[in-house]
Formats: sequence, C-alpha cells, structure tokens
Amino acid sequence: MPDETLAPHPDRLLPADPGVRAIARRLHASVEGLPIISPHGHVPARWLSENLPFADPTSLLITPDHYVTRLMHADGADLATFGVGAGPLTEPQSRAAFRAVCERWSLTRGTPVRYWFETQLALFGVALRPAASTADRIYDAVAEALTTDAFSPRSLYARFDLEVLATTDDPCDDLAAHARLAADPTWSGRVVPTFRPDRYLEAALPGWNADVDRLADVSGVETGDYAGFVGALEARRAYFREHGAVSTDHSHVDARTDPLEPGEAARIYAAARRAEASAAEATALRRHLIGEMARMSCDDGLVMTLHPGVRRNHHLPTYERYGADVGTDIPVAVEYTDALRPMLSRYGTHPGFQVVLFTLDETVFSREVAPLAGFYPSVYAGAPWWFLDAPEAIRRYRAATTETAGFAKTSGFVDDTRAFCSIPARHDLSRRVDAGFVAGLVVEHRLDEDEAYEVLHDLVVTNPRRAFRL
Amino acid sequence: MPDETLAPHPDRLLPADPGVRAIARRLHASVEGLPIISPHGHVPARWLSENLPFADPTSLLITPDHYVTRLMHADGADLATFGVGAGPLTEPQSRAAFRAVCERWSLTRGTPVRYWFETQLALFGVALRPAASTADRIYDAVAEALTTDAFSPRSLYARFDLEVLATTDDPCDDLAAHARLAADPTWSGRVVPTFRPDRYLEAALPGWNADVDRLADVSGVETGDYAGFVGALEARRAYFREHGAVSTDHSHVDARTDPLEPGEAARIYAAARRAEASAAEATALRRHLIGEMARMSCDDGLVMTLHPGVRRNHHLPTYERYGADVGTDIPVAVEYTDALRPMLSRYGTHPGFQVVLFTLDETVFSREVAPLAGFYPSVYAGAPWWFLDAPEAIRRYRAATTETAGFAKTSGFVDDTRAFCSIPARHDLSRRVDAGFVAGLVVEHRLDEDEAYEVLHDLVVTNPRRAFRL
Amino acid sequence: MPDETLAPHPDRLLPADPGVRAIARRLHASVEGLPIISPHGHVPARWLSENLPFADPTSLLITPDHYVTRLMHADGADLATFGVGAGPLTEPQSRAAFRAVCERWSLTRGTPVRYWFETQLALFGVALRPAASTADRIYDAVAEALTTDAFSPRSLYARFDLEVLATTDDPCDDLAAHARLAADPTWSGRVVPTFRPDRYLEAALPGWNADVDRLADVSGVETGDYAGFVGALEARRAYFREHGAVSTDHSHVDARTDPLEPGEAARIYAAARRAEASAAEATALRRHLIGEMARMSCDDGLVMTLHPGVRRNHHLPTYERYGADVGTDIPVAVEYTDALRPMLSRYGTHPGFQVVLFTLDETVFSREVAPLAGFYPSVYAGAPWWFLDAPEAIRRYRAATTETAGFAKTSGFVDDTRAFCSIPARHDLSRRVDAGFVAGLVVEHRLDEDEAYEVLHDLVVTNPRRAFRL
Repeated sequence: MPDETLAPHPDRLLPADPGVRAIARRLHASVEGLPIISPHGHVPARWLSENLPFADPTSLLITPDHYVTRLMHADGADLATFGVGAGPLTEPQSRAAFRAVCERWSLTRGTPVRYWFETQLALFGVALRPAASTADRIYDAVAEALTTDAFSPRSLYARFDLEVLATTDDPCDDLAAHARLAADPTWSGRVVPTFRPDRYLEAALPGWNADVDRLADVSGVETGDYAGFVGALEARRAYFREHGAVSTDHSHVDARTDPLEPGEAARIYAAARRAEASAAEATALRRHLIGEMARMSCDDGLVMTLHPGVRRNHHLPTYERYGADVGTDIPVAVEYTDALRPMLSRYGTHPGFQVVLFTLDETVFSREVAPLAGFYPSVYAGAPWWFLDAPEAIRRYRAATTETAGFAKTSGFVDDTRAFCSIPARHDLSRRVDAGFVAGLVVEHRLDEDEAYEVLHDLVVTNPRRAFRL
Repeated sequence: MPDETLAPHPDRLLPADPGVRAIARRLHASVEGLPIISPHGHVPARWLSENLPFADPTSLLITPDHYVTRLMHADGADLATFGVGAGPLTEPQSRAAFRAVCERWSLTRGTPVRYWFETQLALFGVALRPAASTADRIYDAVAEALTTDAFSPRSLYARFDLEVLATTDDPCDDLAAHARLAADPTWSGRVVPTFRPDRYLEAALPGWNADVDRLADVSGVETGDYAGFVGALEARRAYFREHGAVSTDHSHVDARTDPLEPGEAARIYAAARRAEASAAEATALRRHLIGEMARMSCDDGLVMTLHPGVRRNHHLPTYERYGADVGTDIPVAVEYTDALRPMLSRYGTHPGFQVVLFTLDETVFSREVAPLAGFYPSVYAGAPWWFLDAPEAIRRYRAATTETAGFAKTSGFVDDTRAFCSIPARHDLSRRVDAGFVAGLVVEHRLDEDEAYEVLHDLVVTNPRRAFRL
Repeated sequence: MPDETLAPHPDRLLPADPGVRAIARRLHASVEGLPIISPHGHVPARWLSENLPFADPTSLLITPDHYVTRLMHADGADLATFGVGAGPLTEPQSRAAFRAVCERWSLTRGTPVRYWFETQLALFGVALRPAASTADRIYDAVAEALTTDAFSPRSLYARFDLEVLATTDDPCDDLAAHARLAADPTWSGRVVPTFRPDRYLEAALPGWNADVDRLADVSGVETGDYAGFVGALEARRAYFREHGAVSTDHSHVDARTDPLEPGEAARIYAAARRAEASAAEATALRRHLIGEMARMSCDDGLVMTLHPGVRRNHHLPTYERYGADVGTDIPVAVEYTDALRPMLSRYGTHPGFQVVLFTLDETVFSREVAPLAGFYPSVYAGAPWWFLDAPEAIRRYRAATTETAGFAKTSGFVDDTRAFCSIPARHDLSRRVDAGFVAGLVVEHRLDEDEAYEVLHDLVVTNPRRAFRL
C-alpha cells in the first residue's frame, strides 16, 4: 500500500543546491508573513459581500478550476464528470466528481495544479494524498470544514491576510456587491473592480449591438454615434473609479494599437451599428479603441493591463456544450514591439499612463517585454500568467526579463484565479520561486544578501502597489 | 601526449548537484534494464530480414549519419570525404573516411554526437578516444567486431533488447521485408512499418503524377479522380495495418489542416492530374488531405505523427550533388494552434483519433503543444526530435511541457535514427536526462520519490505504448 | 547604515554548485590572462590616435552608455538628467548626473549594467558601492584618476591587453584616425575599421540620394547608375581593407537576401535616384544588395556580420529630442532560414565567404542559427549581443547552440560597446559564464577536463580570430 500521508515540506520549491537553498530559505522567511496583494483575479465580489458558506468541496475546489478539469479531460474523462456545465450538484454527484479527480491524481505530477490543490488541502487540515483510497476521507474533511464559520469567505479573506482583492467586471456591471462591501461597517477589507471592456470593443461579435445599447442604458450616454460611444465608455470608467477600480483589463487576440483617423473611426462605428462593418473594419476599430483606452488612462489614471494572444474556445464542440472558460483556450504567438508602437509613441512617457504587459508566448519576455519595460517609464513586465504561472516558467521569466529590465519594472505576482482558496498557495509559490531566483544571484555574487531582502520585499509588496497604483 | 582512454562514466548526463544526482542515479537504475521501444525510426527492415553482416565501420557508423557528417562539413570538410554520395567503399576509402572523422573529433565537443558515437564504440569494446593517433586502432577493432556473429543485425536487435522497432515506408512499398520477418519462425522480434505519404499529398512536386499512377497500380484502386485517390490511400493504409503498422508520419513545411469543400478538393485534384494546379491550390489540397488522414485515423486507429517546420535541402548545390537527408535541412518557425484547429475541432475528442506533435521550433512547447496536449485527449506532446534530441534540449522540453500537460501526455522517446547501433545510446541518453529532471522535482519536494519511480517507468514504457498504441 | 564597501568576489558569476564552481574557477583562471580580442565595437579610433585625457566621469561612464540611462529612464528619470543630448558638461552638471545614477543604483539589481559598472569602479580603485551617500566620493576618485596618464586612452588600451579593437565606420569615412595610428611609430596596438553601409543600402531613407552623391565624391566612382553605385561600394570596401578592415556590418530590420534580376536592380536604383522608388522597391533593392555584399565578400574576404531585427527609435519623441542610440531601440522577431537561403545557396560553401549571425530574438538560436552554423562552413553563430550580453542569456545561448553546432562554429565574444572602460569587464563576464557552462559539461561527464581547457582557450582567442579572420 502506498504512503497516504501528505505533508508540505518547509523547503518545497526552493532550489536543490544546499548553498542556494539556505539563502532562499532566509529570503522566503522574510516575506512569508507579508500580506497578499491580488490586483487581478476572478473571484466574485458577491462571495464576500454575502459571506454565504461554500456549498460543497467539488463546486469550490474542482468544477470552476479549469486547470484541474482540463488535465483530467486530456486523459479522456468527460468534463461533465467534474460537474462542468451542470447546475448545483447533489451530495453523491459532488462526492463522485471529487473521487474522479483523486483517482486520477497521478496526472498532476510535475504540475502546479498539484501544489495548489495540496496546499488547499493543508488549509482544510487534510494530511492525506489524493487517491482512490483517500478520496472519501478527504471529501468528508473538506465538507465538514466548509460548514464552519472558519471557512466562510470573509474568514478566509482575513486568514489569507489579503490586503486587496481585485475582481474582473463587465463595464455594465452595477458593482452592487462592491458597493455593499464599501458600505458595510463590519467589513474592513478591500475588494476593487476591474474594467474589462473586451466585448464592447469587438464590433464583429454577434451580441455587440445589443451590448452597446445596454451600455447607453447603463451609462445614460447615448451610443448612437462614435462620440457617444466613447463618452459612454468614459462614463463607465469613471463609475468604476468611484467604486475603487485601479485598472482596466484587455484580452484580444493581438495587441495592436493603430489609430484611425477620427472620421474613419466614426464611419466604421456607424457601419457596425448598422451591422455592415467588415471583419477587417471591426478589427481596425478595436485596435484604434485600445489606443483610446490608453488615452483615457492618461486622464483617469486607471492602469491598463494587456493579456493578448489566446485563441478562445479552440475546440468548438466543447464551447457549444459547456460555454467559455472551461479549459479549451489555446495560446498563439504574440507581437508587442510594432503592435504597441503607436500607443507608446503617444502616451509612453505620459505621467498618467501605465500599462502592464502579460503574455503566454514566452518568446516576447526577453525580445520585447523586457526591452520595452526597460525603457518606457509607463511599461511594466507582467508576471507569468495562466499556463506560465508555474515554477519553471517563473524561473524562465525572471531569467529572461531581469537582465534587461531589472526587478523594479516587473508587476509583482498576479494570481488571476477563480479558485479563491488557492490564492495563498499561488502567492506562496511565487514567493518561493522568486526567493530561489534571487538566492541564486547572491550565491553567484551578483547581488549582496542585504539587497536581496529588499528585492524580495519589493516583489511582494512594493511592485504590485506601484504597478497597479494601489 | 593526451590521454587516449575512453571510459563512459556511470554518472554521465546526471545533474551536477550531488543530492539530485544521488536520486537520479537510483531513478536511472530502475529503468536502465527496461526494453527499448522504438516507435519511429529509419532503420531498413531488410537489415533484419536478411541479417547480412554490416560491411565496414564507415558505412555503418559514419556515412549515413548526417549528424556526424554535417558537423565535419561545417568545419570545411567536403561531404565526399566521408563517403556521402559514393557507392560501396573500398577498405582504404572506408579507413580514410573513418580517420577523417577521428581527426576532427574536437568538433563534437558538447554535442550529443559525441555521446552517441562513443557509446557505440563501447558497444564494440573500444576504449580509445577518437583522435588522429587512435583512428586506425579504433577502425580495426570495429571492423573485426563486424565480422563476428555477435554484431549481426539480429544479434544486435536482441542485445539491444528491442521490444519493437518501427521503420518508415513509402505507401507503395510492398513491405516484403516486414512480411519475411513475420513469416520467419526463427525471428521473434517486432518490426513494424510506418505509413509516410508526404510525396503523394504534395501535388506540386515534379514526380507527383507518376507517384499517383503508381499508387493506383500498387493499390489496385484507380486514382483517376479524387474519390479514387482517397480510396487508394485508404487501401494502402489497410495494407500497412495488416503488416503491423501502428502509425502514419507526416512532414510538411506547415501543419495546417484546413478542409476544402468536397467539390473543391476534387476540382483541384483533377487540375493537378492535368498538371494545371497552381502552387496555392496544391498547398490547399495538401492541407485538406492532412485532415483526411485524421479522418482515416479515426476509422483505422493508426496514430498520426506530425513533424512539420523543416526547409528541406536548404543548400541546393548539396542536394543536387548528394541528394536528400545529408544534413542540409534547416528548421523554420512552426504554428500549431490555428493550424490544427479545423482538424481538432472535428476529431480532437474522437476515441479513434490520436496525434503526436513533434517540433524543431521550441517556442511551441509551452505556448501551443503543452496546452493542446493538456486539453485534447487525442493529442500527445512528441519527444524532442532531431536537433533537439540532446540533453539541454530535452531538459528544456520537460521544463516547458510538464507544468501544463504533465508527464502522461508526452509521447515517450523516439530515436528517429538511421544509425542502428546508436539506438541504445539514444534511449539511454533520454532515460538519464529524464531521470535528472524528475530527481530535481523530488529534491524540490514537488514529487515524492515513490511517485518518481512510477514516472520514470511510465516515460520509458507506458507512454510510448499508449501514444503509439503498441 | 548599509554596508558601503564594494569588493568584486573572485568567484563572481561562477555556478552555485561547489563541484561545478571548483572546475569553473580553474577554467577561468586558465584564460583570465589572455589578451582581449574585440572584433566589433563602437569606440572612436580618434580617442586612441589623439590620446586626449577623458573629460569627466559622467561623459566617460554614463552619458554615452544607453544601457545605464535607459534603466534610469524606465524608472521615470528624464534622459537629460544624465547629460544625454547635451554638449560638454560643466563640473556641477557632471557631478549631478553621476549622483542621479548612484541614487538609483538599486534599479540595476540583477542586470549586467551593475557588473560592468562596478568592475569599472574597481579599475579606478573605487571600493564603494554606488549610492546617494557615496556618489560624491566615487565621482571624485574617478575624476582624479582621469587626470593621470595611467587613465589615458592608450594607457588603458595597454592595461586592458587589447590585441585588436574594431571600430564601426561609415563607408565615406576617410579613416584618418586609423591611418594616423598606423603611421605612429609610438603606437603598437591594432585598431581596425568596420565597413557599415546600412544607410547606403536603404534607398527609402530621406538622405539616401545625398549619401550616394557623397559616395561618388569620396570613392571617385560615379554613382549615376547602378553599376557605378556597386563599383563605388567595391572601391570603398577596398579602401577599408587597405586600412585594416576585416569585416562589414549590416543591421536592417530583416535578414532577407533575395536577388533581383540585374536589370531590375538597375531599374529600381534609377527610380530611387529620381526619388520615385516605392517603399517595396527600396526594400527589394536592399535585400538584393545584401546578396551583393556577400558576393563582394567572396572576392575581398571581408567577413559579413548581420545584426537584424531591431525597430530603431521606437519612441519617436525621444528620437526627435535626443537622436539615435539613446536606448529606445526595441527588438522584433527574426527569421534567418528562408531569409538567407538565396545568399547561402550561392555563396554558402565559397571559401572566400564568411558570415556571422547575431540576433536579439533568442528563438532562432536553436531553431535556425545553430542548424545553419552546424552545416555551412561559412556560417558562424554570433555571440549573444546587446540585451542578450548578460549571464543568463549567455547560458541560454550556449545551451541552445552547442548541441547542434558545437563550440567551433561560435564567433567568440563581441563587446559591441561605446563604453571603452567596460571592455575588460564585458570580456571577463563572458569568460566567467563560459567557464561555468563548460564546467557543467565536465561535471556531467560530457567532456573531459583536459578538453575543457582547450574549449575555453578557443572561445577566447581561436574562435574570434577565425570567425573574423584576424
């Protein structure tokens, strides 16, 4: 019978070399107790404003986490096995889905999914390795914990020592949950919305005209013509700012920012409103509008974050059956240098402007992102994101960006997660891997240890506060 | 006088850190004795069916191995020096060619060519470093060994502990050598053909019409129209299946799979048969036919392997003088995400379909291959291939794919070689480097050691059996 | 109060593992005393021919070094703060600029800028860490040193043990400084010019017609038609050869070499002389002319070096205010395989031809550069350049190129710097990092230590002499 015990090792994720590890251990210890700053993510604000207990282990830990379910799917299991696309699960369904993951736990070997999940189990007091033989015991332990107040959303927020938690929101969202939290005298945390206008900038999407109509309703600004549309977006940005927003988020397939002549933007907009714009015109309008977003950032100070280069819903039958965000988005190559040039030539040294560049295409780290962040005061190199939020990828990121852009122009860690309970695990992974990287510099006499402590502290708190203007 | 002795160190290729090395040594020891599974390669089946002794050291170890000769050519030596393009060599020619390599042995420093070649020398009982001063002694030792039955092809097959050896074959090949082996009561090995239809799918090639005529002759299915052509391909796939084939192999310059309307495919095919198809039409037809190959795989279960992104015969004068496969193929960038989308949207979750993605463009490992293999049950991340079949590249591959796709969705090692005697060296290199990678996970407490043994075992036997349906 | 002392550690930049480090230390010691070969750089020859003392610390160490000033600019400091774009600085201006860098010294953590700068301080006898509190003391020490003969350009040339130093020069340059040095009986060094014709090959540039007129004046060959233009370039190459040049340098945004029909080149040239060539025609002419440069290299033996893939003056307002080469050049993706095919199919095995391929796009190292250098006798893999001239990038380069091209086909280190005093630091960084890489091969039993010493020696002296025909 295999060993069933699970015990996170204090030196986990620290470099193998004993000399480097000793320094990394000290560096990690110096930042282990710092608060968590989470300036980009997908946890619903409602969870905290309502503070309802979480329903069951599966709907909390598995179903919404496409990192977990996609690995199981890749092995041949149907996504429905894990509750994807289903409504609330019955107890037997939830238990069966949980067991289906535990039975396949060997699939997670070598992945950060394992680290995140097992760290969450430790949070719930579970000291058992996921396996067919332990699945029910783990499930029961988590289910029981979830009935206690110690595992309510607000208790966890406090226990995680979250300093700030950002949500991601539609421009038409009324941000009611954020408002309720702000008005709640029993709440002392900070949950900020993020303005994510993607769908409003893509005039070729089927629902675009209806979305733009709704934008007019919500903003109180007519969107019949281009000037009104821009005004409505500005109004919603102001609304988000009033509700605490510090950034806008943009994820289109490319990062181009070519401006249109004002008349041309208005012309395409009008055509799109009549559903007569071509695909090329819609794309040109979107690229122009990203430049407009930068212009607005100069005025209102919202930091722009770019997450380009993903082919969404790559497997169409999965999208048709289960919808978006279920693990079938696949990256494509990214180009930043020429794409951003129009925007950066205009706003790159504007004191109001800041932009954080994320990528799933690692080739741009040393070739484009670090050179841009190492020249433009407005540009920050975004932390490794999504598929790259993992130990080896983080090491490659640091190795690829630091020599050209230093540490100061990197964004700090961004968990970007829907899995609330994994937030501490994700930040701790980042702190451990960064501690190892910086320790390597110390052992190679590229950095003195007194400065290494400052670097680690900066990466955990100074950098995200500065990059996201917190 | 420099040291002349050659002695492979038991810890060769294991990581430098003593702690990691100790674990890697144990992991490697646990798989060192496992059989060799070689599901993709270029050794002629005839060598084993006829079991004739190898002619001489040079024509066995040097002339056909473009890894060796291209390094010598890059230093200024003419390929003819090494017997390339020549017929059978006289003894003085063979000896001179062998010496020409030994004299230039310093060129192989830091390359896997050195590892493979020196491991082969150990196989022949040679304990001398290649050099001008040792060339004749090495040559004599190898030449003498080759006269003994212990070095006949079948003896080596047994000594290598080959479980399966795949060849690569033209769809019109009669597979006579495979049939003879199957019918030979004194033979207990397994040599399987691989269906490689590249030339039949490229209607712009000069010989295409003649090839397609021959396809009709061999298959007994008329190829006068598109439906007949498809039927003839299906017939030959069935023939290959009957002779043991488990996979088809495809190497075009890109990986696109865009389907044509049925009528359009027939129209282009007809034009091509009249030698009237444009280059763009021929390319469109080839991309469509790759999708057809996937459709056939769903039916007949042959695993599809893709090896795109090589500009063949880059130096035309070399091609004109020496022909193909002499070391002048140069990689180009690869794109998989959009290229495979039509095929994977159709067949990506079909239980009959399996595809292994190889690349010489490392940028797609983390960006495209691992995300695809980490979602689609049909997709496997192919092992590092050709120029990337080397220690540092294998480490980069594991670091780039494991965090997103785990270990389970990688293909297992593929030697892809014409150099029969190098097969054990190549597989052992892979086992050693993988042992080192996995040991690193253990030391960093990312994987427990009991699981690490399972991972190594899987990589050596379970994964190739599963990926290639052996 | 933080530690103020600065003491370069003897083991700096050597690998962390004690076993690897011990070997690396021995390897580095074996090449530490070898002369410096600097076959590509930007130090003015006039500094050595005139041997005037350097003016002040800032104009020597900071203002011309865009590696330093761009990091400061990325943090929000104006380039003017550091004297960029200003004429000669007053003492207070120079001191203030120097202090502005020292105050921001934490920005250089983890970058090679720190290593280079601190090694230069050691050269000046300074043992203080740059900081606000030490800025004036450092400034004073450097300023005082500069008044002594020990820090004259020629004294430093001797102290650096420079064997050869290449400058980069306009084809119309009269190379007077080079001639004066050659004629100076008190001078025993070697300073060679490099022929850099970029602007003459880009017919779309605003000043092109005037440049070509000047080329006629200087060469004495009429440039009224294409044949004359080619003849004028040939004449200037010959002039450069007579003054010691060994190479030509080319930096265009792509590396294509497609030839034009002779008549077509003449036609476009004539149109461009009338200012009537389209942008596409000008690009086609430039690509053709790169092939012509290769043809001339076959005849005159000048080594061709290619540095493509940079978007120059990315931030236009900075260019308009400060001019070129101030840190706002940003890399773009590079393609070599198809781009060079026309040139290499013609001249790739010509004994007179040699080309060194540099890149800021690391993706081509394993995919294109190493395969090309590992086949073509004429092709060398250029050392990591500019943003990639840094420890981690050099390690990636060696790991990406060695397995396919070996060590012999790499160019040797190229400092490419305007910062004269940083030359020893840059070469020593390279020697240290290469020593660490090769030591890793020894510890993993991939190379015996006796050969490792030869490899290090070759990388430092044999390779650059061979690649640049010195």
